[in-house]
Amino acid sequence: MTPTAAAADGRVAAEAAAAAVHLLRDRRETLAVVESLTGGLLAATIVDVAGVSGVFRGGLVVYATELKSQLAGVPADLLAERGPVDPDVAAALAEGGRRRCRADWAVATTGVAGPEPQNGQPVGRVYVAVAGPDGGSVVREFDLPGNRVAVRCATVTAGLRMLAERMRIGP
Amino acid sequence: MTPTAAAADGRVAAEAAAAAVHLLRDRRETLAVVESLTGGLLAATIVDVAGVSGVFRGGLVVYATELKSQLAGVPADLLAERGPVDPDVAAALAEGGRRRCRADWAVATTGVAGPEPQNGQPVGRVYVAVAGPDGGSVVREFDLPGNRVAVRCATVTAGLRMLAERMRIGP
Repeated sequence: MTPTAAAADGRVAAEAAAAAVHLLRDRRETLAVVESLTGGLLAATIVDVAGVSGVFRGGLVVYATELKSQLAGVPADLLAERGPVDPDVAAALAEGGRRRCRADWAVATTGVAGPEPQNGQPVGRVYVAVAGPDGGSVVREFDLPGNRVAVRCATVTAGLRMLAERMRIGP
Repeated sequence: MTPTAAAADGRVAAEAAAAAVHLLRDRRETLAVVESLTGGLLAATIVDVAGVSGVFRGGLVVYATELKSQLAGVPADLLAERGPVDPDVAAALAEGGRRRCRADWAVATTGVAGPEPQNGQPVGRVYVAVAGPDGGSVVREFDLPGNRVAVRCATVTAGLRMLAERMRIGP
């Protein structure tokens, strides 16, 4: 990916963050994040939006597999059975992070940024989960193209768009 | 700050991250982060370094003041007395994050990114703490120039350089 393409990806992610923050402020609801492959980029994109402090609580960067259990409360047997790149693990990350950060909503990311496949999953395979005030969560699978930077940036945008969509639909 | 200046700041931070990761790999030690004003940018800068997964565990984004207690274990009375932008709070964040993420080292950031002063502290006032394997921590105060992006980026670089310096000095 060229630097120009990376900058364009960053702008798209920033726009998705601004839209999500706008919705949260309108609803007077709060957000937390739980990040594996994005490693802090989702949180950093959110805090770049002006006036975010009323709605963004913070989050967990669970890069090492054990931290997915220790910090976010993902059942250790689920992680042992499926590995970290799994839709049910993504859902458990979002639900656990939402509770532990005491937020109304949480967005969680897990996947393979590359350059090598991981636990039998190809580079670019990503699961994003959004947990909401009803206690449940929705998960989507993505196969994202490009290098590590492109995969991470596209994951951030996907998570923020899923959050906005979920807020518009309900609950 | 111009986009070119922001890109240059990002390159400096990336170089500091690569140097710190190199030292950690040589020492076979692990790192966690605890981020308030940097909001995930420190973690995201670290995971951009190739081959980081053996040394980087993850971290806590404690943007909301309560999360500094709830996630990182900063004493609530210390926070109530001093506010979140304080050297002893920075030390407690680093020490708490190191334990909770089960890492050898932790870097913590707290400060005022702007645009407004906060809790009587001026824009650009930042405290960075590094906690190490001896259980103690070192803290430094910075007064950083520029807008939110510049202050955050300079904080990331300062934290990574303090970590590298601390690893070279000991313990």
